[in-house]
Amino acid sequence: MPEKRYLMTPGPTPVPPEVLAAGAQPVLHHRSPDFAPILERTLGRLQAVYRTERDVLMFSSSGTGAMESAAANLLTPRDRALVVSAGSFGERWVQIVRAYGAEVDVLAYEWGAVPAAEDIATRLRERSAKVVFLTHSETSTGVVADVRSLAAAAKEAGALVVVDAISSLGAVPLETDAWELDVVLAGSQKALMCPPGLAFAAVSEEAFAARGSGPRFYFDWERIRAAQAKLDAAYTPAVTLIASLDVALGHLLEEGLEQAFDRHARLGRACREGAKAMGLELFSPDDDTAAVVTAIRAPDGVDATDVVRGLRDGHGITIANGQGPLKGRIFRIGHIGWFDVFDITTALAAAELVLVELGADVERGVATARALEVYERARV
Amino acid sequence: MPEKRYLMTPGPTPVPPEVLAAGAQPVLHHRSPDFAPILERTLGRLQAVYRTERDVLMFSSSGTGAMESAAANLLTPRDRALVVSAGSFGERWVQIVRAYGAEVDVLAYEWGAVPAAEDIATRLRERSAKVVFLTHSETSTGVVADVRSLAAAAKEAGALVVVDAISSLGAVPLETDAWELDVVLAGSQKALMCPPGLAFAAVSEEAFAARGSGPRFYFDWERIRAAQAKLDAAYTPAVTLIASLDVALGHLLEEGLEQAFDRHARLGRACREGAKAMGLELFSPDDDTAAVVTAIRAPDGVDATDVVRGLRDGHGITIANGQGPLKGRIFRIGHIGWFDVFDITTALAAAELVLVELGADVERGVATARALEVYERARV
Repeated sequence: MPEKRYLMTPGPTPVPPEVLAAGAQPVLHHRSPDFAPILERTLGRLQAVYRTERDVLMFSSSGTGAMESAAANLLTPRDRALVVSAGSFGERWVQIVRAYGAEVDVLAYEWGAVPAAEDIATRLRERSAKVVFLTHSETSTGVVADVRSLAAAAKEAGALVVVDAISSLGAVPLETDAWELDVVLAGSQKALMCPPGLAFAAVSEEAFAARGSGPRFYFDWERIRAAQAKLDAAYTPAVTLIASLDVALGHLLEEGLEQAFDRHARLGRACREGAKAMGLELFSPDDDTAAVVTAIRAPDGVDATDVVRGLRDGHGITIANGQGPLKGRIFRIGHIGWFDVFDITTALAAAELVLVELGADVERGVATARALEVYERARV
Repeated sequence: MPEKRYLMTPGPTPVPPEVLAAGAQPVLHHRSPDFAPILERTLGRLQAVYRTERDVLMFSSSGTGAMESAAANLLTPRDRALVVSAGSFGERWVQIVRAYGAEVDVLAYEWGAVPAAEDIATRLRERSAKVVFLTHSETSTGVVADVRSLAAAAKEAGALVVVDAISSLGAVPLETDAWELDVVLAGSQKALMCPPGLAFAAVSEEAFAARGSGPRFYFDWERIRAAQAKLDAAYTPAVTLIASLDVALGHLLEEGLEQAFDRHARLGRACREGAKAMGLELFSPDDDTAAVVTAIRAPDGVDATDVVRGLRDGHGITIANGQGPLKGRIFRIGHIGWFDVFDITTALAAAELVLVELGADVERGVATARALEVYERARV
């Protein structure tokens, strides 16, 4: 009897069986009339999830590839860029933008801080930038930034805005067109409930027009846009993953985006209140913005690495350790995509068992009841 | 009753059901102990297929991404490069290398010509190059170059050699280490019998040491090599495709590489002899090197586009049209990966029906018998 497995990281996330099954159908040729309707429907569904009228460009790559596409298409060496960084994925922006030879200014916060629009405005008054790089959901800390106000501050200063929405798209509200976000990047393996291997970019006409002259080919927006306009792909795409994505996005849109956002907010609340009932201290914000991943401080005398290992080895549950300076200090329970409240109660119940084993002083037998209590019924 | 479908292009190619099923298992986290053995085994199997002791770097991308990695890692603007081009994928090398700002010399042949080592030697005497870019199997024409002798000529002149082996690896002999090929690139969706979405690069120490200073991140060899050395991935990889690849490579190595090469040679022979028995003229070479794809000239008065469409709409069979200047002039039947002789007889029988419908003067009722006759038993 194989042990049951529970994937509870903020990405990759669990994939519904019918989404996996769609990807296990016989391979279709990407230029065949059998595939064209799948591609067309999937691209349309992506637009709906992105809330955009623009073409959403599709890459066969990790989300990091989509991030690189923004640097490769927008930046020419010596261009000025501002990166807002408050965690691991903000630091990834710094690395990518530096790799492309831009003159990078970093608005660096402590890991776990919530970036503020006025800081961006101040910084851009001191030193203008062609492009501002933002992180919507900083998966390493659980902070979901108010990207609407951050973007407005950057736009106000005349900059283009690029948003890493890899772990936020489909989980928390994001309005590509209404918020005038120039470039919004996402990946298949987060709230979109698909296996990893596809990534996306919605690009404004203004951003298109501002493309630089740096070297690029695979991630070249123009090449990809031209192919997609003919329902073609510039290079052989990951057709089985696209077939999965088609089904997954169908589920998400059938649930309704507002309902999905509400569900994620309630999952986050259930996780936070359950953890607090146990006596644990949160690292991620204690409010409904923290709908993607809940980051919990390891109790005094406990190493979060042991919590992660105990859940994995003792209970078949994969959660995430802290990254970088937070490794060992926090553990993270993801709740984006195909999650319901019983996933939260499973994670909390197992965490309680492991923490007790590790000698932590936690309140027993209350976390799951509290999580169920606050999950409530859907509000939308 | 759904119509049966037959995928007979030179990529993507048919994927065995157990390979598809492996990719439909629940998603594993790429940093979990459940996934590590799959990754380790798959990387080892790739080394066996590549016939190399080197690490084989893995990208979540199309084969084109692996091609770009060679340009991005090796070339700095103004570096001298020689591209050997005799078809569509040679031209793709020219585009990629130009995009990276190299000074490109092109040894350009007619589409369908077989590149010669002495031409490379002559050209490099006239104008040296840091890197020579080769195409092992030119999928657009069916020509499989003698990459061993081409590479030797380039190495003799002191150049690094990069080989696009995307449609050749696993189908025809290729010895990465013994032939001293600096960089060998491949993709999952050809003879490796997997869905598209993974690509690979085996890189020599000499090539590593010769890396340039151009911008790169996602395809940066050093970053990927460092992660793989710890059985990690630099960015979330396409874990379900890796699970598929593990099973597919297991099949290929169980068959035996020599047996697989022999099978591909015999499939090519069956396809050529069957086509000739029908009275058709070959475009690809009429010898056992043409083991990847058989390119057949459309008979007088027939447009190859109509042949492709007739097979598709009338019989559910996807074959490939000519590309570029050959569009409408040739049609191509792929036979790499999960193919046996009955796939060839199916393609030939249906092609015969369609050609007759289109009014071509073909010999009827002999092609499949001839194909079966020459397929013979395995010679290895």
